[in-house]
Amino acid sequence: MKAYTQMSHEELTELREQLNKEYEEAKAKGLKLDMSRGKPGTGQLNLSMPLLDTLNSSSELIAEDGLDCRNYGGLDGIPEAKRLMADMMGTKPEHVIVYGNASLNIMYDTVARSMLHGVLGSTPWCKLDKVKFLCPAPGYDRHFAITEQFGIEMIVIPMTMTGPDMDMVEELVSSDPAVKGIWCVPKYSNPQGITYSEETVKRFAALKPAAEDFRIFWDNAYVIHDLYEETEPLADIISECEKAGNPDLVYEFASTSKVSFSGAGISALAASKANLDFVRKIITVQTIGYDKINQLRHARYFKDLNGLKAHMKKHADFMRPKFEATLHILEKELGGLEIGSWISPKGGYFISFDSMEGCAKAIVAKCKEAGVVLTNAGATFPYGKDPKDSNIRIAPSFPSLEEMEQAAELFALCVKLVSVEKLLGTI
Amino acid sequence: MKAYTQMSHEELTELREQLNKEYEEAKAKGLKLDMSRGKPGTGQLNLSMPLLDTLNSSSELIAEDGLDCRNYGGLDGIPEAKRLMADMMGTKPEHVIVYGNASLNIMYDTVARSMLHGVLGSTPWCKLDKVKFLCPAPGYDRHFAITEQFGIEMIVIPMTMTGPDMDMVEELVSSDPAVKGIWCVPKYSNPQGITYSEETVKRFAALKPAAEDFRIFWDNAYVIHDLYEETEPLADIISECEKAGNPDLVYEFASTSKVSFSGAGISALAASKANLDFVRKIITVQTIGYDKINQLRHARYFKDLNGLKAHMKKHADFMRPKFEATLHILEKELGGLEIGSWISPKGGYFISFDSMEGCAKAIVAKCKEAGVVLTNAGATFPYGKDPKDSNIRIAPSFPSLEEMEQAAELFALCVKLVSVEKLLGTI
Repeated sequence: MKAYTQMSHEELTELREQLNKEYEEAKAKGLKLDMSRGKPGTGQLNLSMPLLDTLNSSSELIAEDGLDCRNYGGLDGIPEAKRLMADMMGTKPEHVIVYGNASLNIMYDTVARSMLHGVLGSTPWCKLDKVKFLCPAPGYDRHFAITEQFGIEMIVIPMTMTGPDMDMVEELVSSDPAVKGIWCVPKYSNPQGITYSEETVKRFAALKPAAEDFRIFWDNAYVIHDLYEETEPLADIISECEKAGNPDLVYEFASTSKVSFSGAGISALAASKANLDFVRKIITVQTIGYDKINQLRHARYFKDLNGLKAHMKKHADFMRPKFEATLHILEKELGGLEIGSWISPKGGYFISFDSMEGCAKAIVAKCKEAGVVLTNAGATFPYGKDPKDSNIRIAPSFPSLEEMEQAAELFALCVKLVSVEKLLGTI
Repeated sequence: MKAYTQMSHEELTELREQLNKEYEEAKAKGLKLDMSRGKPGTGQLNLSMPLLDTLNSSSELIAEDGLDCRNYGGLDGIPEAKRLMADMMGTKPEHVIVYGNASLNIMYDTVARSMLHGVLGSTPWCKLDKVKFLCPAPGYDRHFAITEQFGIEMIVIPMTMTGPDMDMVEELVSSDPAVKGIWCVPKYSNPQGITYSEETVKRFAALKPAAEDFRIFWDNAYVIHDLYEETEPLADIISECEKAGNPDLVYEFASTSKVSFSGAGISALAASKANLDFVRKIITVQTIGYDKINQLRHARYFKDLNGLKAHMKKHADFMRPKFEATLHILEKELGGLEIGSWISPKGGYFISFDSMEGCAKAIVAKCKEAGVVLTNAGATFPYGKDPKDSNIRIAPSFPSLEEMEQAAELFALCVKLVSVEKLLGTI
């Protein structure tokens, strides 16, 4: 296949005609697919249906510490749920508070609490003139939406294949006391599927922030979400921070949203004792406690890390073929054309695609016109603004394999068409 | 029985000796009862066990609007849960957002949101020099804890048998733009069991606040929690506010915490469309949505207002004997002695007792010494400070009938003993 970048004006014009014809045919198929969010597919959700049988009207709903899960009490989680979530995150139960139905809410609360009450006694952020967050990008749009809602200034940090650009992170964190946090998805990152290297994790743990209330927001959303037998190892940030003499530097978040049911799972915060004690002091007023029955249901059903892993293998069996089919189509259709690049992830929920500069919005629009809704171009950057208009997040989880193949074919076609237009200077 | 206040110094001294003897005997029984919180008893919790059978691995978990409750989506509640909670609150589903596991958290969030983002476009409260809340007292300690945590100044409003002192409420709300809210438990109030009269509700709805961002925080926690067949009617604040031309004046809160399981129920906010639209704008960033499976579980199990009412009758069968036994003992032991007064509630979770001035702390301490833990004296007032040191909240729900009788006997004895000491001037 000849690279588009090597083609003459004439060749490109001819190609455009042909691609336009293909596109009209594709439109005529009347596809109707929504791939905008990383939603589990129905087959994946079916996997967890036995969870609903775990507790029934004959169950003893007493937690290991003797607490009746049907009544008030137990602010920071029942012991068996703490153990399960600690297992998942690779930390110890004493580092864990188990919350309610989703980790996004914990992250929002953690920022909101810092705004209103400060961090371990620091000035509440809402009293400061300026608060900044570092945002490795491409990244997760809902992280950026939180910091944007609070008026926090977001600074883009480029991603590399080993994690965020740590030179830049170290420089900004150590020099600017207005920098209070950084959003991280350290394993199978959203959307690139990159796992932070051991060196990256150690450099995070060894940060010397100018602000005493700087924290790493470590969203370990895909900690057990492998596509293959072999996992990409991720160092435990909590113990690395301890070793580096920075035990309070990090908040780690995780949930079972993509293990059991999305929005009806359980979630957890892991951090140092000092951080957790401060959190407990605030949440004792914020809530009478989280849903302990759902905590018990999850703890009894999944039991431990082995139970979780066995379950996640079944998830992978649904996900892997769709990822592989998508990657195969990208390679087959776009390989060698020099109009885009992508990463083959070993886990997580997304495939990240980078088009030629200035093409992403047009590609997403073209797909939509033909019935395939992708995440908005730009969504993977703070304020929804991708400076290169290049990154597109593909979410293969929700469609069926057949639908995903159709969508990937259409996507590749739209990439070609828009790239030709770009090279011809017509967009 | 001769009133203590009519007794001579000699009579009181003699009485003290006898009471002290009785108290030592009571202590020797080694009671161990915690009546500090309004927790449902085990019998009440057992009533809701079939709720756990409502959904199982063969269930279709599709909500009426076609949404799969196992997946993401559906920010403000599934239709059937909105209808159920609207039924409970006596309002329409379009006024309702269904949240997670407890209404306390909605109230906290509502104050936190106002602090951070203002109310319908007003200045965020955290940017103001002074924010004040009116606190009808005795009231609910967790309300006061929320406003205290946010540094909001609390002003005590005396309670009357028809609700808060409305002359004072009207005066303060209409004259002081720093007054941004008032905490209300309008039906079977915590702790007095008073239901606001129709006139009180209408006067609330007709308030003319100096602050555009003033809101009534209407915690309808005991809306269907009758002890008897006949309910004490409460006018619907939402429609009264509409009628008065103040549709945005109120936030109403309710939950099934004391209907199904405490801390594992569902909860709701009811308000005008303008208020709800503003809330939705914020929570779309705060959460990916609340637990729709638990919403569906509750909606399918309770079905409608009739289902809820039938269920609450069974709750009342557990509660009523304990309330009646307690009131009977108070009357039998303390009637005519002029050392305390109390209200006989027709619903709710508490009996409110007022001792002679300056005796409540000592009575609670005496009870504790003999093994019965009551809510801290003062807890029913802002900052935990009862200016008269007189109000004590009795929570009959959690102990068994027999335990409650023992506790009430001990309580009456402690009231007598402390009152005698007070009259003798020895405390």
